[in-house]
Amino acid sequence: MDYEKLYSNNAKKMRSSEIRRLLEISQQPGVISFGGGLPNPKAFPAQDIKEIVNEILDGESSKALQYGSTAGLKEFRELLADFVKDDGIKTSVDNILTTVGSQQALDIVGRIFLNENDVVLVGLPTYLGGINAFLAYGAKLVGVPLDDNGMKVDLLEEKIKELKSKGENVKLIYTIPTFQNPAGVELSLERRKRMLEIAKEHDLLILEDDPYGKLRFEGDAIPPIKAFDDEGHVIYMATFSKILSPGFRLAYVVAPLEIAKKMVVAKQSMDLCTSTFTQTIAYHYIRDGYMKNHLPKIIDMYKRKRDIMLQSLEEYFPPGCRWTHPRGGMFLWVELPEYINTVEMFQEAIEKKVAYVTGKSFFVNGNGLNTMRLNFTNADDDDIREGIKRLAEVIKKRIK
Amino acid sequence: MDYEKLYSNNAKKMRSSEIRRLLEISQQPGVISFGGGLPNPKAFPAQDIKEIVNEILDGESSKALQYGSTAGLKEFRELLADFVKDDGIKTSVDNILTTVGSQQALDIVGRIFLNENDVVLVGLPTYLGGINAFLAYGAKLVGVPLDDNGMKVDLLEEKIKELKSKGENVKLIYTIPTFQNPAGVELSLERRKRMLEIAKEHDLLILEDDPYGKLRFEGDAIPPIKAFDDEGHVIYMATFSKILSPGFRLAYVVAPLEIAKKMVVAKQSMDLCTSTFTQTIAYHYIRDGYMKNHLPKIIDMYKRKRDIMLQSLEEYFPPGCRWTHPRGGMFLWVELPEYINTVEMFQEAIEKKVAYVTGKSFFVNGNGLNTMRLNFTNADDDDIREGIKRLAEVIKKRIK
Repeated sequence: MDYEKLYSNNAKKMRSSEIRRLLEISQQPGVISFGGGLPNPKAFPAQDIKEIVNEILDGESSKALQYGSTAGLKEFRELLADFVKDDGIKTSVDNILTTVGSQQALDIVGRIFLNENDVVLVGLPTYLGGINAFLAYGAKLVGVPLDDNGMKVDLLEEKIKELKSKGENVKLIYTIPTFQNPAGVELSLERRKRMLEIAKEHDLLILEDDPYGKLRFEGDAIPPIKAFDDEGHVIYMATFSKILSPGFRLAYVVAPLEIAKKMVVAKQSMDLCTSTFTQTIAYHYIRDGYMKNHLPKIIDMYKRKRDIMLQSLEEYFPPGCRWTHPRGGMFLWVELPEYINTVEMFQEAIEKKVAYVTGKSFFVNGNGLNTMRLNFTNADDDDIREGIKRLAEVIKKRIK
Repeated sequence: MDYEKLYSNNAKKMRSSEIRRLLEISQQPGVISFGGGLPNPKAFPAQDIKEIVNEILDGESSKALQYGSTAGLKEFRELLADFVKDDGIKTSVDNILTTVGSQQALDIVGRIFLNENDVVLVGLPTYLGGINAFLAYGAKLVGVPLDDNGMKVDLLEEKIKELKSKGENVKLIYTIPTFQNPAGVELSLERRKRMLEIAKEHDLLILEDDPYGKLRFEGDAIPPIKAFDDEGHVIYMATFSKILSPGFRLAYVVAPLEIAKKMVVAKQSMDLCTSTFTQTIAYHYIRDGYMKNHLPKIIDMYKRKRDIMLQSLEEYFPPGCRWTHPRGGMFLWVELPEYINTVEMFQEAIEKKVAYVTGKSFFVNGNGLNTMRLNFTNADDDDIREGIKRLAEVIKKRIK
């Protein structure tokens, strides 16, 4: 049967992401991969989860295994409203919904706000999953450069004015302010406040994606933009993927009330509700103090791995290469000399048994050919050293 | 801030489903509800899940708590390919993907196939979640009447010809052939085969939703339409919500290879992957024989509850009422005399502390005002009797 004439316009445009293909290649045996954005399995609190699940299944299985409300379990959302207070976010239970990972939150936001050709402003570079979610709704993605302090908000404002003067429908600013994926940088406090002002001035929404905020190795915490959101311009999202388990597919959104309600209505037709089972586990994980106890262990492990990667880069990488020094999160970002193309280099790296993600994948404007993202959380300590050494050799051969 | 000008066209059309509002009302204390489509919590294999989770977290937590591939865990999909053989479906691992409940499968199918105003043929009545999923993509839903043998396929064919002659873009036939939600009826073998022929003749796809097939109380199993699908016209979906736990949000799709691949690409931008944790539990549940042991207990319980409800209907309901006699599943369907409006009657039923779902919600053509859906699985045995008695009293007052 020929399905072509049955496909939606949407489906005809769908392409499997290039990065997926590269990640598959990097799963070959013996390859040390800095590619995937994977937490370290040793960071999973398996024994904590075991204790919690045993308690739940003995005492509250009727509820934990049943359907739940679309927004999420009420006591869990109440706890989350309290949980985000630590970061300066004042909100209440009705502003919160749970989602199947942050990716679903991105998808719901796309569904609610994006018509074909609407503009979303994103970082250069930015998270690929965000790019894909918005493209699925036919959005135009316009990039704004980053530096070591995150998105350049002066350029952001210029870009918005330029787009509006051309009659473009600018809707959202998508940002990962803390330990940005892929660049590893933090948006400064001053820029956070300025970004919010810009959103207010231009009647835009900020979609603040904060998967790594709890993974801070050093430096003072900078409040999320949502903490300053006095007029309902910020949709904030965070996830349990990096502090508990990505296999749970559990994240949450804090949104202005009207938007939260709209997101819940959209989610009804998408999957009815988020897993009540994983919600109940996460509820106990926070409420009963497991997280407070476990999080420092994850941070210690990841800090050590970042340090090993930074030391190895210093030791092995040739002159002419630059990289970020993230104070938390999971990634660092490498710029090679401009004449080195990391897409072309990828095959050779795989032959030398080391993998990365080509930086180009994170650029909506086709730039970043000489860049790459390195994940420092997933590999074993020794493999980080060895992998960086292998990668350095591949690069050195291309240094002019 | 005024969000109206930022919303997508899609969002502007979104309405929270009426049934949700009614179900909320029916959660008042003391109300015996036949409304929600909930499994009985006593049917959840909590101790089995406990054993399985303990085993998983001791032995394979690295994988079960990590991200997984978008299609689903390979060994789980291999097992499912084998599992559906019992029903006569011949398929292989690459034709299968896991989803966040069947609702997500419906959503993905909508995304891949439906443009604004494309036609989906559905039963009169049909599952509300299906209606909502397709409406979210702007589809036109056209109803085809059912009788005790399911959808009237002769009328289906007439309707398709009529729609095509009007230039309508007919794409999908949505059907729940076994223990249909809401009507509880089974599509006969002959009609299943005829429906497939019709799909072939008119180049359409059948979306076969089979959440209740394993919950058969009596009678011989009729193979799913997918078992006869020699040319790739059927997308089959089934769920773990009714045989394990709805709180797991876990279902699976068996689709023609090209469609399965397209669905996986769509899912990438929607939520990256289905929970690896609940997939791993379901994998053990089937593989290690837990399901085989547990399923008869669910069937016994639900059969008993159906019998109690049928007996109570016989005993208490006034003449002039008709109901279906489902041989499995979770629902039966009641037709009251035509002059009784179940929407208008609802408030009084709630006052008398009993709830149902108004049949109208399941009709895409506004019919069914004198009908209701009764769930027989969720309430306690005594409550079924008492609830039907209460409901009978409300109805009797309206009998002319």
